[in-house]
Amino acid sequence: MLQEVREQPAALERTLAGELRNVEELRERFRNNRPSLIVLVARGTSDNAAQFGRYLLEMATGIPVSLAAPSIVTLYQRPPQLRGALVVAVSQSGESTDTNRVLEQAKADGAMTVGITNEAGSTLARIAGHTILVRAGKELSVAATKTYTGQLLAMYLLAYALGAPVELDTLRRLPAAAESALSLEEQVGSLATGYRDMQKAVVAGRGLNYSNAFELALKLMETCYVVAERFSPADFLHGPIAILDRAFPVFLFAPAGVTWTLNREVLERFGQTGAKTLVITDRGNAEAASAAHGIVIPADLNHTGDLPVDVYTPIPYIIPGQLLAAHLAVAKGLNPDQPRTLSKVTKTL
Amino acid sequence: MLQEVREQPAALERTLAGELRNVEELRERFRNNRPSLIVLVARGTSDNAAQFGRYLLEMATGIPVSLAAPSIVTLYQRPPQLRGALVVAVSQSGESTDTNRVLEQAKADGAMTVGITNEAGSTLARIAGHTILVRAGKELSVAATKTYTGQLLAMYLLAYALGAPVELDTLRRLPAAAESALSLEEQVGSLATGYRDMQKAVVAGRGLNYSNAFELALKLMETCYVVAERFSPADFLHGPIAILDRAFPVFLFAPAGVTWTLNREVLERFGQTGAKTLVITDRGNAEAASAAHGIVIPADLNHTGDLPVDVYTPIPYIIPGQLLAAHLAVAKGLNPDQPRTLSKVTKTL
Repeated sequence: MLQEVREQPAALERTLAGELRNVEELRERFRNNRPSLIVLVARGTSDNAAQFGRYLLEMATGIPVSLAAPSIVTLYQRPPQLRGALVVAVSQSGESTDTNRVLEQAKADGAMTVGITNEAGSTLARIAGHTILVRAGKELSVAATKTYTGQLLAMYLLAYALGAPVELDTLRRLPAAAESALSLEEQVGSLATGYRDMQKAVVAGRGLNYSNAFELALKLMETCYVVAERFSPADFLHGPIAILDRAFPVFLFAPAGVTWTLNREVLERFGQTGAKTLVITDRGNAEAASAAHGIVIPADLNHTGDLPVDVYTPIPYIIPGQLLAAHLAVAKGLNPDQPRTLSKVTKTL
Repeated sequence: MLQEVREQPAALERTLAGELRNVEELRERFRNNRPSLIVLVARGTSDNAAQFGRYLLEMATGIPVSLAAPSIVTLYQRPPQLRGALVVAVSQSGESTDTNRVLEQAKADGAMTVGITNEAGSTLARIAGHTILVRAGKELSVAATKTYTGQLLAMYLLAYALGAPVELDTLRRLPAAAESALSLEEQVGSLATGYRDMQKAVVAGRGLNYSNAFELALKLMETCYVVAERFSPADFLHGPIAILDRAFPVFLFAPAGVTWTLNREVLERFGQTGAKTLVITDRGNAEAASAAHGIVIPADLNHTGDLPVDVYTPIPYIIPGQLLAAHLAVAKGLNPDQPRTLSKVTKTL
């Protein structure tokens, strides 16, 4: 797992270099055929990447986005009408049975289809009308890491293909941003030791970093067996905050931008409960970066173009989370590459 | 809380009696104006009811459904294009700031709008083009119960208004089904004592009962301070199952029908980990009902019409969950009506 976490800058470079021409072609196709709706379908880590796509694609293209409920197609066999929609399936292996079924059904119904996968020869790549390849290289650890950030990158590329004002030059700086996050490994490793006895946790993030809350929680569950809840801070205030008490471990993704106002307020509320909060931020959020218990990515990830200021934070932000999970697993005496009761490809309907 | 749980059969009766004419009118309006997309927007318990609507409306009408991401409108101020869509806001109080903002924006953009609320004089009822009133009576407990089942009922009524083959005669039998679930109070109360030391739990449910997994987990979090994870069993197998170990408390909603095949398999996997699983089912699922550790609603809730066999299970199924949370809170020495750090109306953007 750790090795794959460290491979991410190179993997991101490779995806960009390999996919740009493909994505320009896709952009041509969408120019005369704009979808009225985007439906994303995925499971597990890929579903967390889809959750990022749900926010990015809707806010960057103005097209409404929905996360599919696969069982409506696979179990209940009552597929919705998707003519004119774009259906995007996301799967590391490309062999997720339910995801592929939903995509196949949508295609038969007249939807445009795109597959985002790490495996060029997979069933998903064969079904999808168009494929964006993640090109992260074989992922051996059961806990997905480099394919998650690769899928996030693929979402930016898809947004670009749909005509969104995503800047390719900024995407080209993401590998360096990932590198700067990786430079925190020693700090995060020693932090992990302090969490050795953690059995439960809350991970919170909002908007473009909502998916990272899901993803860090999933890594903590599958590699460290921590009962990790994932929330938007807005939802967390609607009830679940009652679970917090003294020393309860909380992790909060806190970039600069429009989510910071609520996050700052939420941090205060957390403080009142005595919870032990760790903030993941970057130099661009000076206020959060100067606070006591934080992981501060040593780069300013703020963006000044047509998209929100925090739009390029999610890839570097998840990296300290991945490092934390990998080091914590080791501190707990577990093998993060082979969690109990799990296998790499999960097939469900 | 307990008193409001017990009021549910009467509240459901009242909603049906009071709303049927209104819903027939709405059905007329939709007949010549079928939306191309349905967007549901809500927070907290109301968002769990929306999650039910996400499944019911899509499978019963064939119209694609999306759960809104409010921050895209309220914080990022990049609303999607929703002309021709139906936007449905769900809120007990009708005063949820972000929900109302999203609805207002959608209306200005040319969307049809419906509000589902318990308060006829609320801001939400004023903004919405059409309102379905929950008529549960004032809800005093911070933990919502009767408004949740009232909102589920409103979703059936909305599906009917959209031309779905929902049978009004079957809806009229739901108060009796709720009554039969309430008859379990003594059994559930004594079960609760056995969970007195529970600190963490997993709640799982799929398809039409996915929302109930979210809702039971939320009740356990807010009234009993249990760190309760909520999952679809399909997602749970993709990683989080690693958290399970001996005696880990798991709750599974298990009606008859297409979800039972996977649920049965999942129960076996849970068994292998030594987890302590409690199944919520009804007499109509003979196999689950005859298993050892179950709460069996003494009614056959299977449905034989045009919709799936489990379509009318969610309202009675959540009731043992509500009873469990209320009794467990008392067993833990907590006041379920007034959880720490919470208030009834939560305002976030």
